[in-house]
Amino acid sequence: MASPSSDIVSALTALLGADSLLTEAADVAAHIEDWRERYRGPAACVVLPRSTQEVSDVVRLCHAHGVPVLPQGGNTSLCGGAVPGTDGQPPVIVALSRLRRIRSVDPANNAMVVDGGCVLANVQEAAREAGRLYPISLGAEGSCQIAGTIATNAGGTAVLRYGNTRENILGLEAVLPDGAIWDGLKALRKNNTGYDLKHLFIGSEGTLGIITGATLKLHPLPTAFCVAWVGVSSPDAALSLLGRLQSACGARLSAFELINDLQLDLVLANVPGRRNPFSASHPWHVLVELSDNSPEVELSAVLGRVLEEAMEADLIEDAVLAASEAQRAALWEIRHSVSEANKKAGVGLTTDCAVPVSAVPTFIAQATEAVRAIVPDLPVIVVAHMGDGNAHFIPFFTYPEWEAVADKEAMAHRMRHVVNEVSHALGGTFSAEHGVGRTHIAEMAHFKSPVELKLMHAVKAAFDPDNLFNPGRLLPPAA
Amino acid sequence: MASPSSDIVSALTALLGADSLLTEAADVAAHIEDWRERYRGPAACVVLPRSTQEVSDVVRLCHAHGVPVLPQGGNTSLCGGAVPGTDGQPPVIVALSRLRRIRSVDPANNAMVVDGGCVLANVQEAAREAGRLYPISLGAEGSCQIAGTIATNAGGTAVLRYGNTRENILGLEAVLPDGAIWDGLKALRKNNTGYDLKHLFIGSEGTLGIITGATLKLHPLPTAFCVAWVGVSSPDAALSLLGRLQSACGARLSAFELINDLQLDLVLANVPGRRNPFSASHPWHVLVELSDNSPEVELSAVLGRVLEEAMEADLIEDAVLAASEAQRAALWEIRHSVSEANKKAGVGLTTDCAVPVSAVPTFIAQATEAVRAIVPDLPVIVVAHMGDGNAHFIPFFTYPEWEAVADKEAMAHRMRHVVNEVSHALGGTFSAEHGVGRTHIAEMAHFKSPVELKLMHAVKAAFDPDNLFNPGRLLPPAA
Repeated sequence: MASPSSDIVSALTALLGADSLLTEAADVAAHIEDWRERYRGPAACVVLPRSTQEVSDVVRLCHAHGVPVLPQGGNTSLCGGAVPGTDGQPPVIVALSRLRRIRSVDPANNAMVVDGGCVLANVQEAAREAGRLYPISLGAEGSCQIAGTIATNAGGTAVLRYGNTRENILGLEAVLPDGAIWDGLKALRKNNTGYDLKHLFIGSEGTLGIITGATLKLHPLPTAFCVAWVGVSSPDAALSLLGRLQSACGARLSAFELINDLQLDLVLANVPGRRNPFSASHPWHVLVELSDNSPEVELSAVLGRVLEEAMEADLIEDAVLAASEAQRAALWEIRHSVSEANKKAGVGLTTDCAVPVSAVPTFIAQATEAVRAIVPDLPVIVVAHMGDGNAHFIPFFTYPEWEAVADKEAMAHRMRHVVNEVSHALGGTFSAEHGVGRTHIAEMAHFKSPVELKLMHAVKAAFDPDNLFNPGRLLPPAA
Repeated sequence: MASPSSDIVSALTALLGADSLLTEAADVAAHIEDWRERYRGPAACVVLPRSTQEVSDVVRLCHAHGVPVLPQGGNTSLCGGAVPGTDGQPPVIVALSRLRRIRSVDPANNAMVVDGGCVLANVQEAAREAGRLYPISLGAEGSCQIAGTIATNAGGTAVLRYGNTRENILGLEAVLPDGAIWDGLKALRKNNTGYDLKHLFIGSEGTLGIITGATLKLHPLPTAFCVAWVGVSSPDAALSLLGRLQSACGARLSAFELINDLQLDLVLANVPGRRNPFSASHPWHVLVELSDNSPEVELSAVLGRVLEEAMEADLIEDAVLAASEAQRAALWEIRHSVSEANKKAGVGLTTDCAVPVSAVPTFIAQATEAVRAIVPDLPVIVVAHMGDGNAHFIPFFTYPEWEAVADKEAMAHRMRHVVNEVSHALGGTFSAEHGVGRTHIAEMAHFKSPVELKLMHAVKAAFDPDNLFNPGRLLPPAA
């Protein structure tokens, strides 16, 4: 007897033709393992539909066969959200890479409509060609796909000014678990006609349907930038500086990134070409960026004035303003080098908490205390999108120290969990921008209230009553 | 035998005490009719709970008795969304007026937590006292309650800069149809842990639960303003001006309101003290506002430069910049006087469409053609939040002309429907900011796709399986 897997493969081959399916181990390999090689599992096959209609046909067939469906974009999840698990029936992976049309750009409406499989960098480029900005920017932008950034509500370094992906989506097109196509691609700023369904799909991590198209919100291209590197004595001082900048600059403040001295030291020691902006050392460092559209505005005058006042008030220890495009790029390169540096230097147990912005200093202090109660004097790295309250707090082991840890998995879990507990007690979250995927299922069960989990399960059951879409991700099993 | 109504009244009286119930006709009157006196219906009683817990107790009791629940804020709906209907079982009206605490303000996190019954103007004031702006501003702000603005995703005149109510909500607390309390009051900018439930409640018009508390997003208080009144030859010219201003000013552009000459004439003729900014006449008028936080920025220099360039390009006919706070207020007063003027002058069949911003000129032209196919040469008023694509297009009858219309209801319906058809054909909506309520149920059935309606019904059934919450509002009956 044919297995259910071979049944669905035959049916899909009959539907789309063999050139739209990947079934050989070598072809499938890149789709069933995440890029960090931490998660993998078998798939019935990988399907490469060419259109929204083909996605619909594929899903309808899977639905009829009762086969699970795993939507996949660029497979850049940090949480195991986009590859199969090892339990349950192997899913059909629906990869969106052939859906990559820029469907239309409407600069006067500051909007564009794109296929779900468009690579983020290509979307940014198409917007720029029309004189507009699509502001979502993140490390994986050269390979992640727009549907994936929407399904995970991706963040990045421009959230302070422009919001998360969620705030930059005007409309969506999605294929539902029964194969029906929902056309919600309106390009409107205002539309009060019933429940806002697009916000359910944003951040749903492939559990409610497949995002096949999106209407994106565009912004005027900023034409002027000013970047400063600031040394401060503490996160509290950084918080005061942030408040002053927000009052003085409003929406012009486009970045406020905090790192600690260990993080700077690791970048300088491990990434060639990075230079310390200061000769003296400081315990904490802030990268500040202002951006604007008007030639009338002297950004450096505004930023210079605020920094001068902060210096006089003893809020900051030192500051440099980038005087050229090259200097500005060099300061940003320090910030963009943290992942590379930390990977070379040792094992960092990355966390992804967000707390109220006002609670970031307390969070850092209490989290440090909590992890050092487990390993005394453990070094910690802090890289925070401080303007968003999002602090990547990273207990750090050199490779020899990590080798000496007996149960590595238990240690990693314990460290992250105590950090998440500190965040939760301050009204924070255990996943600010990376999502839940498979990694944080246990934390979902632990931190979310029964009322909230019950509502989420009710939503899931309303959209996907047979639990066929990306099962085992996002939500813990129903109570 | 006691009626179901008297049963639930007895039970609620036993639960909360007689001083928390209104049952006498004179006391109930203001709650069972809308302020424009267009909709009314019987209620079992009005309950005035003092706390979220009391709301929960009330709802639990109604749920046990199978009695419908009608959440009510300031009862300022324009669509009959907040008063009982005449069919079905009379509901218990849960009025939120005793829930009016400002629970906390956190300026460093740019957030505040408030009770659902707080009046919008009081929320704005509490933010201002903390040196912050809560930007939602609309005509009813002196009486509407924050929970009502959230349940209807209220708009207003600051959407261009700050977004709708939806974009200014960080967290919610709600009592669900079974009486459970959902605490979603987090004050976070980033939180990717499951479906974003708050966005379902925003705009749900009381059909999914009662919003008892909210975490609001605050902004730095703008300290500088610059307002101009501009005469243009056409909506197309206004659209080009809008594009220039967005490119030059980015987020500083805080209002771009378009009105036609008839609207200006009606204001000047009907509202004492309003004066024409120009001596010559122009077919279209735009109110432009820039606002900012930095003293370094000369807003009038930016705005003056853009207007000068637009004048040279023959985009605008004339422009005046407000040279004082009094002049700025006088220009805004023209805009704020439109409702009063139109009511005095005759019968305006207000519509509330939004289309892509780039389609506003086409929408106005086609809608004019459509209504004049019904009544040749009919005057039309246009008042548009043009920056949001939201045009209130108003076929206008003088009182004598309206008296001569045989079937007034049919005429009003027909006029509005053809305007909505034009909007729909351009990718627009029939309700941009006023919601659906009872008024637009037929348009929901007509314009929404079966797939979308089915999803909305699935959401409703997931949250309120017994259909007890504000039944007959927002959604047409399931197909």
